[in-house]
Amino acid sequence: MRALTVQPGVAGSLAVEDVEDPRPGPGELLVDGLAVGICGTDKEIAAGEYGWAPPGAQRLVLGHESLGRVREAAAGSGFDPGDLVVGVVRRPDPVPCGACAHGAFDMCRNGEYTERGIKQLHGYASQSWSLAPDYAVRLSPDLGDVGVLVEPTSVVAKAWAEIEAIGNRSWFEPERVLVTGAGPIGLLAAMLGRQRGLDVHVLDQVRNGPKPDLVADLGATYHCEGFDAAVAGGRPDVVIEATGAAPLVLDAMEATAAYGIVCLTGVSTPGRSVSVDAGALNRSIVLENDVVFGSVNANLRHYGLAAEALAAGDPGWLARLTSRRVPLESFAEAFEERDGDVKVVLDLQ
Amino acid sequence: MRALTVQPGVAGSLAVEDVEDPRPGPGELLVDGLAVGICGTDKEIAAGEYGWAPPGAQRLVLGHESLGRVREAAAGSGFDPGDLVVGVVRRPDPVPCGACAHGAFDMCRNGEYTERGIKQLHGYASQSWSLAPDYAVRLSPDLGDVGVLVEPTSVVAKAWAEIEAIGNRSWFEPERVLVTGAGPIGLLAAMLGRQRGLDVHVLDQVRNGPKPDLVADLGATYHCEGFDAAVAGGRPDVVIEATGAAPLVLDAMEATAAYGIVCLTGVSTPGRSVSVDAGALNRSIVLENDVVFGSVNANLRHYGLAAEALAAGDPGWLARLTSRRVPLESFAEAFEERDGDVKVVLDLQ
Repeated sequence: MRALTVQPGVAGSLAVEDVEDPRPGPGELLVDGLAVGICGTDKEIAAGEYGWAPPGAQRLVLGHESLGRVREAAAGSGFDPGDLVVGVVRRPDPVPCGACAHGAFDMCRNGEYTERGIKQLHGYASQSWSLAPDYAVRLSPDLGDVGVLVEPTSVVAKAWAEIEAIGNRSWFEPERVLVTGAGPIGLLAAMLGRQRGLDVHVLDQVRNGPKPDLVADLGATYHCEGFDAAVAGGRPDVVIEATGAAPLVLDAMEATAAYGIVCLTGVSTPGRSVSVDAGALNRSIVLENDVVFGSVNANLRHYGLAAEALAAGDPGWLARLTSRRVPLESFAEAFEERDGDVKVVLDLQ
Repeated sequence: MRALTVQPGVAGSLAVEDVEDPRPGPGELLVDGLAVGICGTDKEIAAGEYGWAPPGAQRLVLGHESLGRVREAAAGSGFDPGDLVVGVVRRPDPVPCGACAHGAFDMCRNGEYTERGIKQLHGYASQSWSLAPDYAVRLSPDLGDVGVLVEPTSVVAKAWAEIEAIGNRSWFEPERVLVTGAGPIGLLAAMLGRQRGLDVHVLDQVRNGPKPDLVADLGATYHCEGFDAAVAGGRPDVVIEATGAAPLVLDAMEATAAYGIVCLTGVSTPGRSVSVDAGALNRSIVLENDVVFGSVNANLRHYGLAAEALAAGDPGWLARLTSRRVPLESFAEAFEERDGDVKVVLDLQ
């Protein structure tokens, strides 16, 4: 079968090639791959900056934002041929840390987890793949192509679950939310904010393209004149930072209302030094009981929340998040940055 | 009666003077003041850098770390003459914000709270004071003089309650705790960490004086060779930052183990700019699911937790935290910094 592979650590090594068909282990599902979404982590791996091949292998099958249809399912697996499924990305180490042993592998303590398409396990960018039922999430058939958004939505569902768990340590009725960055993560975070009935503001740099309308069509407010303008109308109770841009991270920490919560989701590049009045920053965080936290990855529960959130969304709006569908053999086009791109999806069929 | 007063905003205006006796309102307690503890906030007010007199008044009675004995209590107040009591510091605005309306005045959203001895309400540094029973905390008579530590312990009890609430958003079994600063807040935070059975490390600058022994006698480990040495033996799961020193705040944010929690409690002075690799800091917070949060003040529940924690502590160790007791009339001595000081207490009787 055909698969998109890469040699981790080697820039420009991305290729579609023939690889062996998957051999499902006992009880595992055999799944026909329908699509994979491409995200910043895939681009980092393609650039040779991240990623690990499986032990003994030189190349890694890429792809962690999956969508597939079950071809074969063992009796008792809980799945049937024809089911629309998404595979979870992360797996605990066989000798799990305390968090992984309790199903909280998204909070792994020792870093010994593996991740399909990223770290030591082949990904989902192939025409078929095998999947343990414990790491498969069944989707409503109505979701269709939008199911490829389950993985990025799981990241956002986790972020919101964390915001609520942290906020509920005391009285918490947030009103205003600022999302920085109108990429797929930012837009999905905004959608989940709107589903909670909140006053959602989204900050991005671009004035044109689909983002302003996507934000407006959620019933949220789009801002493109910088951070200060975005908070001029009121300090946000919650900020979801989805750019990883260092100055925005620091702006967000200082800009929240009292009892503010900043959720950082953007994986930034080290080496960007900025001058900070750390005394003022600390004083403001302390005197306002503010919280800044990071959120990455998701566990099985968050995938379920993500599937629910997508099912509750507007299918037309969700379909517009996929700005391009690229056939597997033309993979290079999917890794190009083009004006107006939100999510680019590789079509595996 | 005699009281320690200050003209907020005017350095050097601290004085003991005659003020009117308190006139308890309906249902209020009349309390004989036994002692007040002096903390950094009192010194900031004495230096003219903080504090607000009551509306219409020029001067503020100082003192928020209280200890008193009930002289008169109305029937049905729930208190009896002779009861050892501490007064809560903060009061919600008469038109409360949502948090204050739910008893979470420590998380006040609009800043319209008042605080005895700090903001618009006279404090407890007088020979007697009145107190609404809703803001009075009865102590076990066994606690004696140590009761003056209830207010600083309430700050620490809140910090720990927050750490646990935030940590319990997922699997949380912390082992190693680092407390930066061995002042009263740091030492009490360390005590509460030891009461939880944790491996507690305390970092301070001094090599001599009572702090190293106070830490050792808790069964904790004292460090005075800098931050890096204090974390060389293992990354802490929890950091309680109790200095407000800008470099330590930033060190703490980067040094925690995965799923680390940094609780900032030190109120630092703005104007200290440092260069930060904000990209690396953000990346580390995100990829490790770390949390940094500020905690200030305490509500009624935390005062109760504080009284319990002190009752469970070693009375001899707790007594050693008060390094000096200064008579009210010699107040100036209580505001001097002396080698070996931990907590300095003004004796009101």
